[in-house]
Amino acid sequence: MTAERAELCARLFGETDLDGVYSHGIRRFPGLVKAIDAGRIDPNGQPERLVASGALEQWDGRRGPGNLVAHASMGRAIELARAGGMGCVALRNGNHWMRAGTYGWQAAEAGCIGICWTNTIPNVPPWGAKECRVGNNPLVIAVPRPGGHVVLDMAVSQFSWGKLSLHRGGGKPLPVPGGYDQDGRLTTDAAEVLRTGRLLPAGLWKGSGLALMLDLVAATLSGGLATWQLAEDRREHAVSQVFLAFDPAAMGADEQTEGMIDKAVEFLTTAEPASPDGKVYYPGQRSLQTRRTNTAQGIPVDPECWQRVQEL
Amino acid sequence: MTAERAELCARLFGETDLDGVYSHGIRRFPGLVKAIDAGRIDPNGQPERLVASGALEQWDGRRGPGNLVAHASMGRAIELARAGGMGCVALRNGNHWMRAGTYGWQAAEAGCIGICWTNTIPNVPPWGAKECRVGNNPLVIAVPRPGGHVVLDMAVSQFSWGKLSLHRGGGKPLPVPGGYDQDGRLTTDAAEVLRTGRLLPAGLWKGSGLALMLDLVAATLSGGLATWQLAEDRREHAVSQVFLAFDPAAMGADEQTEGMIDKAVEFLTTAEPASPDGKVYYPGQRSLQTRRTNTAQGIPVDPECWQRVQEL
Repeated sequence: MTAERAELCARLFGETDLDGVYSHGIRRFPGLVKAIDAGRIDPNGQPERLVASGALEQWDGRRGPGNLVAHASMGRAIELARAGGMGCVALRNGNHWMRAGTYGWQAAEAGCIGICWTNTIPNVPPWGAKECRVGNNPLVIAVPRPGGHVVLDMAVSQFSWGKLSLHRGGGKPLPVPGGYDQDGRLTTDAAEVLRTGRLLPAGLWKGSGLALMLDLVAATLSGGLATWQLAEDRREHAVSQVFLAFDPAAMGADEQTEGMIDKAVEFLTTAEPASPDGKVYYPGQRSLQTRRTNTAQGIPVDPECWQRVQEL
Repeated sequence: MTAERAELCARLFGETDLDGVYSHGIRRFPGLVKAIDAGRIDPNGQPERLVASGALEQWDGRRGPGNLVAHASMGRAIELARAGGMGCVALRNGNHWMRAGTYGWQAAEAGCIGICWTNTIPNVPPWGAKECRVGNNPLVIAVPRPGGHVVLDMAVSQFSWGKLSLHRGGGKPLPVPGGYDQDGRLTTDAAEVLRTGRLLPAGLWKGSGLALMLDLVAATLSGGLATWQLAEDRREHAVSQVFLAFDPAAMGADEQTEGMIDKAVEFLTTAEPASPDGKVYYPGQRSLQTRRTNTAQGIPVDPECWQRVQEL
């Protein structure tokens, strides 16, 4: 891997832990190295454009590292948005892009609205089913704001696999049910949910429906694989992804628009809390707080995870 | 209103009941007439283009009837998609567009992927809050399929206001909690949820975050009002909306793609059900079933509602 690519790859992993998304940062790095060693990921695989139709383009990830390919794809969507107001890259043969929010922050940093999602192997049961037949297909929507970007990064299950794994490690119950136990009852025991694999879709039938739609749009526009086609590949590569960017300036957005967004955030966060000690957060707010804390005090790394990295 | 516009307007109302979405069809018609009488809606208001930047356009709804303006906006997005692969119309000063799914079915009927959403007055409390500070901002994603389009039409609350009103009328409890009672406890009593106004966001913090993002993107790209600005207007007009269309053919989609989508739907609907008598549905499936039944047997209309229409 060239030094430049290695540096970007390392930065994307590092920034994920910096923002406190410990489930998708350095913890996943040994897996990437393993996939490279096994030949499943080509460290120098570069995405290639297959079709261009105005601001809508179809690209092939060509087995490159998932985060580098996704970063290049959102970068291209931003480029298209800057040139014409809006850009869309539909990517086939992507790899696990690690932290979904990364590409939302990337768009917002560039002053663009960013919307992106990926499909995954089937790891969530659709509403009404026992078997996992939809992906947890994370969806990201990001809006730039000088006072702190507003970035939603959500899996379509109530808790992502990564969050459940962290909870299992910590032994703490989930704050609300995250899935079903083996008797088909809702449970807050993360270990039990991971055992049955029966994650609860966020919003029940809504998250379940959203998962299918994100998958179908990504596979259709990219010409890549859908979740049902990824079913036999537990290692999750050759996924399909969509990256959309909009340049607000092309629509005349200005300081007044920034003021409108600030007021919207204020309107939300100043709502009377449901419990006396409660607080209402906007999407991305806690990532930003953690980023500040970790920048000042250093990034905490799980010793076991650090040892695994050292041993690579 | 010209005969042509009146006919389209009536068709959109009628098709909503035809598909079984009784909360957003003819039941809402008296409200439209009232708003026209009060001068809040201009029956002949036509949307006007303000900015064009490639396939991204900004339009003003100019107080036209919400469903006609939204239909014209998705129509324009489809036109742009057919010309260049993708189109986006960001609309300000829209009105209540009635059934959100209408514009998804419209895109799918035209062979396009359609994505659209609207903001609303603040009528859902964000996660952790008591007060309503986000809109229930319905989101629609539609994928065309010869065997039956796949159309997701979801409010960001677990149940839309319309669904809750229907349940209150019927006196039946909700199948899962839909919001909070006056003591802040989750309840399945639709009347109680409507009384407190504390609807549960679908996916808890996820639906809450999604609501804010949809609002910010719509208001930013359209240059229109955000939910906090609609707070004082209980009659909900001058909303902001986004209409996106993609032409799959521009990305090389063909019969093989259709087969991929059919298989995805089959993979989902053939999952082992969670309960022995259960069934797994794809988004839009039940609307299509109801459409067939109502086409054969006639559309049921609530007598009280029909009387109100007769009295107009």
